[in-house]
This record gives sequence, structure tokens and C-alpha cells, in this order.
Amino acid sequence: MNEKRPIRVTVWGENRVEQTNPVVREIYPDGMHETIAGAIREHLGERTEVRTATLDDPGHGLDGAVLETTDVLTWWGHLFHEDVADDVAAAVQQRVLDGMGFVVLHSGHLSKPFKRLMGTSCNLRWREADDRELVWTVNPAHPVVQSVPPVFEIERQEMYGEFFDVPPPDELVFISSFTGGEVFRSGCCFLRGKGRIFFFSPGHEDYPVYHHVHVRRVIANAVLWARVEQPSPVDTSTCVESPRGWFEERA
Amino acid sequence: MNEKRPIRVTVWGENRVEQTNPVVREIYPDGMHETIAGAIREHLGERTEVRTATLDDPGHGLDGAVLETTDVLTWWGHLFHEDVADDVAAAVQQRVLDGMGFVVLHSGHLSKPFKRLMGTSCNLRWREADDRELVWTVNPAHPVVQSVPPVFEIERQEMYGEFFDVPPPDELVFISSFTGGEVFRSGCCFLRGKGRIFFFSPGHEDYPVYHHVHVRRVIANAVLWARVEQPSPVDTSTCVESPRGWFEERA
Amino acid sequence: MNEKRPIRVTVWGENRVEQTNPVVREIYPDGMHETIAGAIREHLGERTEVRTATLDDPGHGLDGAVLETTDVLTWWGHLFHEDVADDVAAAVQQRVLDGMGFVVLHSGHLSKPFKRLMGTSCNLRWREADDRELVWTVNPAHPVVQSVPPVFEIERQEMYGEFFDVPPPDELVFISSFTGGEVFRSGCCFLRGKGRIFFFSPGHEDYPVYHHVHVRRVIANAVLWARVEQPSPVDTSTCVESPRGWFEERA
Amino acid sequence: MNEKRPIRVTVWGENRVEQTNPVVREIYPDGMHETIAGAIREHLGERTEVRTATLDDPGHGLDGAVLETTDVLTWWGHLFHEDVADDVAAAVQQRVLDGMGFVVLHSGHLSKPFKRLMGTSCNLRWREADDRELVWTVNPAHPVVQSVPPVFEIERQEMYGEFFDVPPPDELVFISSFTGGEVFRSGCCFLRGKGRIFFFSPGHEDYPVYHHVHVRRVIANAVLWARVEQPSPVDTSTCVESPRGWFEERA
Repeated sequence: MNEKRPIRVTVWGENRVEQTNPVVREIYPDGMHETIAGAIREHLGERTEVRTATLDDPGHGLDGAVLETTDVLTWWGHLFHEDVADDVAAAVQQRVLDGMGFVVLHSGHLSKPFKRLMGTSCNLRWREADDRELVWTVNPAHPVVQSVPPVFEIERQEMYGEFFDVPPPDELVFISSFTGGEVFRSGCCFLRGKGRIFFFSPGHEDYPVYHHVHVRRVIANAVLWARVEQPSPVDTSTCVESPRGWFEERA
Repeated sequence: MNEKRPIRVTVWGENRVEQTNPVVREIYPDGMHETIAGAIREHLGERTEVRTATLDDPGHGLDGAVLETTDVLTWWGHLFHEDVADDVAAAVQQRVLDGMGFVVLHSGHLSKPFKRLMGTSCNLRWREADDRELVWTVNPAHPVVQSVPPVFEIERQEMYGEFFDVPPPDELVFISSFTGGEVFRSGCCFLRGKGRIFFFSPGHEDYPVYHHVHVRRVIANAVLWARVEQPSPVDTSTCVESPRGWFEERA
Repeated sequence: MNEKRPIRVTVWGENRVEQTNPVVREIYPDGMHETIAGAIREHLGERTEVRTATLDDPGHGLDGAVLETTDVLTWWGHLFHEDVADDVAAAVQQRVLDGMGFVVLHSGHLSKPFKRLMGTSCNLRWREADDRELVWTVNPAHPVVQSVPPVFEIERQEMYGEFFDVPPPDELVFISSFTGGEVFRSGCCFLRGKGRIFFFSPGHEDYPVYHHVHVRRVIANAVLWARVEQPSPVDTSTCVESPRGWFEERA
Repeated sequence: MNEKRPIRVTVWGENRVEQTNPVVREIYPDGMHETIAGAIREHLGERTEVRTATLDDPGHGLDGAVLETTDVLTWWGHLFHEDVADDVAAAVQQRVLDGMGFVVLHSGHLSKPFKRLMGTSCNLRWREADDRELVWTVNPAHPVVQSVPPVFEIERQEMYGEFFDVPPPDELVFISSFTGGEVFRSGCCFLRGKGRIFFFSPGHEDYPVYHHVHVRRVIANAVLWARVEQPSPVDTSTCVESPRGWFEERA
């Protein structure tokens, strides 16, 4: 409950298509990760310390020291999931289970750490055809909807549609519709181990979605929601043998 | 697990607009309750014994003897919720808590028994303007989707949209979209006490929705899902005082 | 996300048995409500403005002006639930649905507002016989467990046991065991409308439970968790008719 | 809803300690898998076709043809989880996601297929010291509790205690207490993909738990609950591209 220590956020992005595709570069001249980092800084200001990391940094910018000092990791990847090293994916999974927040954006649904944490295929329906997306709040008591209108529009967007093969979310916050009549559970909370995961589907490299006022707000809200101030002392590293009387005799 | 005793289903309907509105009468010449009862008989056959009851029957057709011998009650009402006596609404609520299945259809979301069981306003967004509804399965592991396609269309339908003010469903089975871009949690499961509740939103008096092949199947599936074969012996009628040693000394 | 405005907490208590029973008065000389208010002040300090209200205050101390300016209401009652006026119970229920946090303590499980919000009997098993209660964290990713050990002991306590007839909690945080071998879902979260409800079972007038270091911490954590900074603008006051084009044509 | 085709159940067991440990052999002379298979046959009779498979069968007895013709797989393993081939574990996981029921018993919580499906460590607290286990129903509306008393006793049992590092169960059915005061979420439902998973913790090789009347009943109930009669036609094998108009133009 000590609000004084800033939330240490690491914004991870592939940062490749921004280098090679002029359309994307025009929308995100500093890379999508910088735009996302900016949304968090804009809304949370001094409450956070935001840094970025990308696929082509050494160790993908996610070595042990970085993960250890990250309270919330946001993840955007799309075409290069397979280039993420298995041991880094495993380390991210473990850090989430140990209490790190994890905000997974858009095509990150197929990233290695998210799939490992979900245990399902994480597949979905899709179309890239300038759909209109409407994002509806279905859980107005949830902190992630703070200052977000009951419904907002993303003018042009990739369609993501059901069935989205994830476990039933522990909390469902948003449902989206698309021009074609598809629906999607676009804001989903999952608690895993001591960590907190928010999946938020809006966002695509070909559209300026991360400049959208409400999308930016949701991402900032999600960072606050996902942050665990002090991970629980529960020991999950092993199966703990507790002989008769262990509780009474603990120091 | 004894499948031999038939499931005793009571299909309840207001059966008023069918008498006064020729449009409705043409679609549902025997009343909507008979059409709904027919769907259950069609799919479940000898596995069920289906009877009907309506608002203008004595005691709304739901006296103690009827409720006591009902395994699953389906409910359709719309314009006359206030004409349901409070004591009947309370008795239905109690029977659900005691182990009766309760399948609430469409405008039944504002019925007295459903509102009492939910504890919320049960309000929603609506429009009657010949919308197309698409009903999407978001829980393919759920028995209620058995033999239902991943998405199906209802050509003309009243729009029901979010925010739907019910508790977060214990299981979410369907999400619908409408022509206007609205979304709705159209198939929702709630467990309450020893009873099981399924809310299914498709269905309206001005549209032939209860003749729709997949809607009929979902209703039959919901009856099977909601049925509790043998209500649990857990005592919920009072707060049970259990003196030290009660478990060891029980007969 | 503006953390500057304090959380306005109203601590409600019956404050009758404290006046008549010397055992209780010795444990809680200023009333249980003052002890509970002290726990919140101790942990949250300037982040909250805490006031108290009791059954025998005019309007139970919960008139419209008080409720309107309460962000989180905590509730302790036991022997006099029936003395709470129905309209006050209804007003509390409505304020929760409109975005107030509601922290229900111990025997408050049978209070009118809680029962109205749950829709079930809220009955349970009980015994007053100096049981030892162990409170186990089963959701280490949850903010309510912040700075609470994986298990803690309450040396003497009333037993509350299953089956506890509430809806399946939206999040389950604690499970307790008792000397007799009973178990209880002792920390339960419910989201209802725009409001957030936490039920926490430890606490009894004959035992000094509200002086317990971890119980005090959980109550403070629950206040933070239940607080909705800015209730969602979603309109739940009525069924909202939304004619075709309403979204495109909104101002 | 066609109840005529029997449920094809495969009961999988390690069947090693039964060969080497005379204590275990005396309790389970035909192997634990045969005792478990017997429980299912006893309660479900002609409604099931039950076969068994063990670790040392070729391909662990779980080749593609077996999995393809298994509606529900039950799993007991303890000391030799690592001897299960990774590709078999992956195939079991995939079959669950494709619609197979999966009933995981006791120490199966650390089995490869279960851990892959959960995405968490699945660690827990434990003690082997002749604890008394009490198993409490906390969800009396659930089919798995059919004909099971509100609480039942297992006289001597290994203790499994919280924190149990699994995702929050989609439905929580049983909570157990132990002599030492520990608690455990002993009956947990998870829906994953098109499949249904039930974890049930009672059962240990050194105790005659699988001869216990209520344990046997729960396992049979769980088989019925986990069975998906006809897996949903939802395509989860890949991300499905759905060009504009795909729904309207489908054959």
C-alpha cells in the first residue's frame, strides 16, 4: 500500500516491422513500443518508471536483472514470435508466476510466454480489412474501465473474432464487435500464481490504434491493475513438506 | 445418475400478447409457451415430461404442488412482470435455491424471480428494429452448445445490448452481435444455492425466434444442463448450529 | 487514478451489544465500529477520511447525504438485522450497484443489504466454542492479501462453516479451517453493478478479533480494493432504448 | 444428447509402486487403475466402456488410436511423471483441447499433461502422516456432488494443503480440511478449449482411498461431468482468416 515507490514498467516490442515497413514507420516513427510507453507515461507520470526493450536487444532486452526489476511487463509481438528464445519465454512465465504483472497486447496472444501461461492454443478468427471496432464495457465495477466510456470506437482495425481459445477469463472487462458482425472478448484478466495478466486486443501495426485516446487509457489502467506491490510470501517454488505441527512450531 | 425418471419441465409464459396482438398470434397461434414446450419435446422426447402454465392461470399456474414437482422451470414474460404476485415470485426464487433448474428467456430478464435471484437491476440496452443477431459460441466445452454451430444467425430480432446489469456469469456461453454493432452476453449460467439458472436472450414476441432451429436446440440443451437430478442434502434452510463434536457423533 | 482525493469510508456498526454486554464492552470499549475504523486509519492514514454510523443514529446514520458521500461502507451487524429499515437496506443496495464499495464483516452475512445483493439465503454453519481459526491465502495475486502471511491464526473464534449459501464468489481470496475440521470461504469478492463487495468472515463480538494485526490489515486492504474511484458512466438506472444509429449520431 | 453411445473411458495409472511395494499391492492387488476402473463400472455400468492403460505399456498405452477413441481419460501418477514421454503429454493436452474429458487424480497434479494445461507450477503443501481428511461440498448445485453427502471423512490420508498453485478454478466443488488445520481446494473444474478437466485430490497409494464409497462416487460423477458428447465444430487448430462477407457467403 506504499504508493511511494514507482511502478517499474518494461514495455517490450518486436520493433522490426517499424524498421522495414514505411506505412508502420509513419504511424509509429519511434517504434510501437515508444508509443505504448508514452501512453503509460502520459497517464501515470511519476507513479511509474518506464523503460523499453525489443526483440533485437541482447537477450531480447529481458535478462534476469531486467525481469527482476520489472513490476509490469507489456508485450507486443506479431510476426516474430518464434524468434523469442525459449529460455526467455520460460523466464517471463516464471516471473509472472512469481508476481510480475503482464499486459499482453493484440497479436501478443500467440507469443510464447502468453501461450505457456494459458495452456491453450490461443488461436482466434481474424481479418485485416479496415473494420470498425466498437469496444464495450461489460464490467463497470472493474478498475481497468476507469475513465473509459461505456463504448468507444476504433475507426479502422484488424478484426479479431471468436472463438478465442483461451481459458475462461477470471474477469471479463471488454467485448468488441466488428463491421462483419464478429465479436471478441477484447479485455480479459487472468490471475496465475502470484501474478496478474491482462490481455487487451485492440492494436495493430498498420493502424494508429496506440494513439487512440481510450486505448491509451486502458493500457495505463491495466498497468495499475496488473501491478502487485509486494508479491505474496507464499512459496510456490516447490512442493512444501509440512510435518505435523509445523504451523505451531514455526519460529 | 438414474436417467430413467423423466425431467419434469414446466414452461411458463405470460400468454397475453398472444391473445391481443394478431401479429404475435400468427407467429405463435398456440401461445409462445406451447412453441417453447414443443422445442423441448422435440429434442428431449421421452426424457422429459413437459407441461405449461401461464400468468392468468390460478396462482399463475405455479402453486406449491406444481413447483414441488418441477425439475426445470422455463420463464417467458415481458409486459406484465408486475402482475406476478410477490409470493409466487418468492416461491420460485426459493425453489431455485432448493434445487430447481430455471431457464429464463429474453424479456424474462426483468421478471421478479430473476431479479430477486440476481440482486442487480438486470437492465440493458434495447431496440426493436429488425436487427440481425449473430450468436457466437465462446465456450465450446459447455454442454449448452452441444450440436449448435460456432455462430448462427437470427434474421430479425430485437436488439439487446450491453451493459447488461447482472452479476458476472458463473459461465459465459454465448455472445451476440447486432446490426448496430451492439454486443450482448446472450447465454449466461448462474449457480445459486442448490439450483442452476440459464439466461438466454434470443426470443421476442414479434419475431418467430422460438421456431429457429438452433434456438430450439439451445433451450433443450439448457433444460438438460439446468436439471439437478437429486438436490444436494446440504441444509440451507437456516443457519445450522454444529456443536463441537457434531461430526464425530452424528448417527 | 487521481490518488489525491481521500477515500471516504463509513464504518457502520450495530453498537448495541457493546452497550449491554460487559464482556463485549471490555474488548471494544468504544464500540466495535471504532475499533474497525481505527484499523483503517492505522493502515491508510491520510488516504482515507473515516467516519462511523450506528443502528440507533437517526436513519441508522445512513441518510442519502451520507451514502452519496461514501466511497466504501463497512458493515458489522449481528442480532438486530431486522431493526434496519427496509428503505435503508434498499438504499445501501442501490448505492453499491451505483459504485460504492461494500465491506461486509462476519455476522453481516445475514444483513438485509447483503442478502438483497446476493439473492441467496446467505445461511451457514456455526458454533461459538473458542475454536482456533486458521486463515489461508488461496489467491496470492490478489490485492487483499498484500502484506498478509500465507496463513495466520485467530486463537479463539466463532466457527463459521460450509455450506455458505452465497453465489460462487467472483474471486475467492481466503479459506479458513476451524478446530472441529470445518472449512469456510472466509474472504470472498463479488462485483455487482458498478460496485465492489468484499465479505470477510473473521470477527465476533465476544472475541478480540478486530484487534488482530492481520485482520486489521485485511480490512484496510479490502477498503482499497472495494473503492471505485470514479463510478462508470454506464447507465443502469433503466433499460436504455437505443434507436438505430444512436451511436453514430451521439453528440 | 444421444445417451445411447457409451462413454469411452480410459483409466491411466503408473502401475509401478503396486508392483514393488507390498503395502500398496495389498491395498490394490490389481493395481490402482483397476480399482479406479471398477468405481466407474460400478456406478455407470452400461453407460460406459472402461479400459485401462499404464506407464509401461507401449506408448504408455496412449497411442493416437486410443486417445482418439477416448471420451474421458482419468490419470493417476506419482513418482514417475518424468518417465512420461513429452510427445505423449503433448498429445494428451491436445486431445483435451479438442474435446476429451480429463479427470486428474491426487498426485497427478504434477503430471506433465496437467501442468501443460494449467500453465502454473501446480505445487502444493503436503505431509504423509495419517491425517484425517474431511471433504466439504461448497457447490451443491454441481453435478459432481450428486449423491455425495455435504461432508465426508477419509480416515487416513496424505495431507494436501494450500497454496495450490493452479489457476482459479472455473468451478470450485470441494474444499478439504486436514488434522493439522490445513485446507485444500480438493475438487476443481477447468474448461480448456473444447475439453473439460476435473481435478480431485483424495487418493494415495498407501491408503485405501479408492475403495472409499464417496470417493468412488465422485470419480464416476466426474466422468459424466467431463464427457463432451460431441465436440464443438469450432475450429481451434489455427488462426482462421475470415474475409469480409465470409459469414454471408458460407455454403
